[in-house]
Amino acid sequence: MSDSISKTIKEYASEYQAQHLKELLDFLRIPSVSTDSEHVKDIRIAAQWLETELKQLTFEVEVIETAKHPIVYAEKIVDDSLATVLVYGHYDVQPVDPIELWDSDPFDPIVRDGLIIARGATDDKGQVYAHIKGAEVLLNTDGQLPVNLKFLIEGEEEIGSPNLDSFITDNKEKLAADVVLISDNAMVAPNTPTITYGLKGLSYIEVHVKAASHDLHSGAFGGGVPNPINGLAKMIASLHDEQGRVAVPGFYDAVIDVQPEEREAYKRVPFSETEFAEELSLSATPGEANYSLLERLWARPTLDCNGIAGGFQGEGAKTVIASEAMAKISCRLVPNQDHEEITRMLGDFLKENAPEGLSVEVIDLHGGKPALTPMDSKEVQAAAKALSEVFGQETIFARTGGTIPVVSTFQTELKAGVILVGLGLEDDRAHSPNEKFDLVNYYRGIESSAAVLKALADIK
Amino acid sequence: MSDSISKTIKEYASEYQAQHLKELLDFLRIPSVSTDSEHVKDIRIAAQWLETELKQLTFEVEVIETAKHPIVYAEKIVDDSLATVLVYGHYDVQPVDPIELWDSDPFDPIVRDGLIIARGATDDKGQVYAHIKGAEVLLNTDGQLPVNLKFLIEGEEEIGSPNLDSFITDNKEKLAADVVLISDNAMVAPNTPTITYGLKGLSYIEVHVKAASHDLHSGAFGGGVPNPINGLAKMIASLHDEQGRVAVPGFYDAVIDVQPEEREAYKRVPFSETEFAEELSLSATPGEANYSLLERLWARPTLDCNGIAGGFQGEGAKTVIASEAMAKISCRLVPNQDHEEITRMLGDFLKENAPEGLSVEVIDLHGGKPALTPMDSKEVQAAAKALSEVFGQETIFARTGGTIPVVSTFQTELKAGVILVGLGLEDDRAHSPNEKFDLVNYYRGIESSAAVLKALADIK
Repeated sequence: MSDSISKTIKEYASEYQAQHLKELLDFLRIPSVSTDSEHVKDIRIAAQWLETELKQLTFEVEVIETAKHPIVYAEKIVDDSLATVLVYGHYDVQPVDPIELWDSDPFDPIVRDGLIIARGATDDKGQVYAHIKGAEVLLNTDGQLPVNLKFLIEGEEEIGSPNLDSFITDNKEKLAADVVLISDNAMVAPNTPTITYGLKGLSYIEVHVKAASHDLHSGAFGGGVPNPINGLAKMIASLHDEQGRVAVPGFYDAVIDVQPEEREAYKRVPFSETEFAEELSLSATPGEANYSLLERLWARPTLDCNGIAGGFQGEGAKTVIASEAMAKISCRLVPNQDHEEITRMLGDFLKENAPEGLSVEVIDLHGGKPALTPMDSKEVQAAAKALSEVFGQETIFARTGGTIPVVSTFQTELKAGVILVGLGLEDDRAHSPNEKFDLVNYYRGIESSAAVLKALADIK
Repeated sequence: MSDSISKTIKEYASEYQAQHLKELLDFLRIPSVSTDSEHVKDIRIAAQWLETELKQLTFEVEVIETAKHPIVYAEKIVDDSLATVLVYGHYDVQPVDPIELWDSDPFDPIVRDGLIIARGATDDKGQVYAHIKGAEVLLNTDGQLPVNLKFLIEGEEEIGSPNLDSFITDNKEKLAADVVLISDNAMVAPNTPTITYGLKGLSYIEVHVKAASHDLHSGAFGGGVPNPINGLAKMIASLHDEQGRVAVPGFYDAVIDVQPEEREAYKRVPFSETEFAEELSLSATPGEANYSLLERLWARPTLDCNGIAGGFQGEGAKTVIASEAMAKISCRLVPNQDHEEITRMLGDFLKENAPEGLSVEVIDLHGGKPALTPMDSKEVQAAAKALSEVFGQETIFARTGGTIPVVSTFQTELKAGVILVGLGLEDDRAHSPNEKFDLVNYYRGIESSAAVLKALADIK
């Protein structure tokens, strides 16, 4: 069905490559660093630049004020009967420090050896602009968009999106969509179309264990008083069983297990456990029994201590029994685990397993919801098929252990499926000097966007 | 047998109280702070002062140079057939800081409310001088000492006795003794004659656990990489069993268990477990099963973590998996545990119990030998009987969890029984402002010394 149309997209995209590159370089020239108050003006210039671009494509555009940096919102409603796709991205960028490690001016983009080199090239200006150009390609080939299309492009992603959640919650109708499309990440390997359809959630606590009112001499008191460090170690050890499973009762109750089709899909991922271990200088990659490394990284809930402290940490031998000890412990969660419930379970379990004589305080530090758009859902399958055709390669289905809170907000508030299509590569040096975006990935990103939007037309 | 003699001692001691006090105050006036190079001259003045005092009592006295502060050695050999007692003590004192917390000049001793208040009053000038005056009492009542008596009074105790061990080893013949008598500690309660006949040894290690070559993001890597903190916690937890026993195989093999007579003796110690817990704000005092609190504190080997560190210890939630973690772990040992062997066992056990994928390094930081002069030995029993008579109270037999390395050196090098007779009290504020020694304890210390020396005459 799509052969002739694809060719038309390909042809147009190919013909306009020079123009599309020139425009992206203009966008990259704006030093829209959101962390730095010196760049407040540049942030606005970037927002206005996007406004102009989107208006040229006949979108209705608003630059909406927040408590800090504005959101650029654009929409083009074609027909209520069509599916609606919301593209989310951000126009702000990371600071450039350490500037001395850049080989060229981060805000004077250059193209060298097939790479666009500039701050924001991959994160996220290049990727979000590929979607804008995808819309252009569709408008100038088919004459109309195949879906109702909305753009939500914020200017605060690199400072933790402090105003985004409330904006989404307050504008559910405006933002209403069937699918949210995000390109702010990487494909799993070069030339490997990748759809990330799941992210983990987070439960993060701090535990304080206390015993005597003050530090004690280990000679005079050893054997007669509870030791908070030994006690905390025992409590932490009790969190996993011999199979590498989390031993907190109820921890797995709400977990949607890895589905057979996911298990099959992960086997096709170009991922070498040996190379993974070698790159990290690891002699082993242990974890929960009966799950592959990739399944554990992507699709199984995990528990890790992130920090521990107690007693004497300096040089030499101080014979002290500390009065208290502290640990930071976090769980990465998968649907349908509830981070508040997990935090409560974890805290209760630690308290119940505290050795005699220790008092335990648990502080809830942070939480985030997991997110999943089922791999076999219409939107994921449609997008995957389109990407496979653009790349001439089978699309890889991936999840990630990371947490992007806004993904869960989109799912919860808009009841939309969320698809992450990484157009960049892992080695694009996002947040680092000499950030880059491969020309081929920019151009293929434009084609991918057009193809995916076309494919999503039928999902409603 | 000793009634009339005791009265004579009592009479003499009572008659000369004012003189004995005056002399001690003179001794306390010398600011012999060993840590401070400004007081090098005062250290020598103190040594010479002792030399003069002991010569007046017809001892042969030497002031022996070391690499730092001199040792005062004195002896009076009566008859080779008699037992030989070596009294060990020190004439150096702690610094006076914080000087502003003293109510009087630390080197201008005052007597107020029955207390001698000065730096060194209890630690150790007052206690060691009581023994010198004990010899005087014997010489001036019986006309001769009941034992061959040696004094080894060093000037480096408060800086860790850096030259004492080698001096003892190099002078075994000179120092040869049947019993070493030390008063540099406290009785367990006021008016409670106490003999401390055992001290614990020490094995102190530092453990480093390493996994990946660098810190990792807990979202991207959680569940796929070994976590050094969780691993270290598991290793530490494995060091104790459910009975509170140390789980390292062989740990107890060489232990001389608490003897039935010791168990009985400890029941007579004025020690309240409730008060102990209350003073430390503890809700429980857990430890090795089947041993009383006092038995654990004094006579059972123990293991404690003294410090732990790893990952993020700052404020808030950092989602990191650390590349390494560290713990300091020490064991308090009892005879006949060998600290080198225990250190090796402990290190091996930790390595064997390290979870997969972790590398473990164990550093031997410190070791010390335990010491024990059996409670039922002739010297301990004779001294106890003498003390009971002086105090009119039953002598308490105590051990301590602390480690005094020189005690083990005396035992090993001189093959001598070591008896610690604390003449001071726990609240004497050794090392603190307003250090004091109760007048009654000084006077009773002189009587106790004379009585104990007399009692030790028959042990050979």
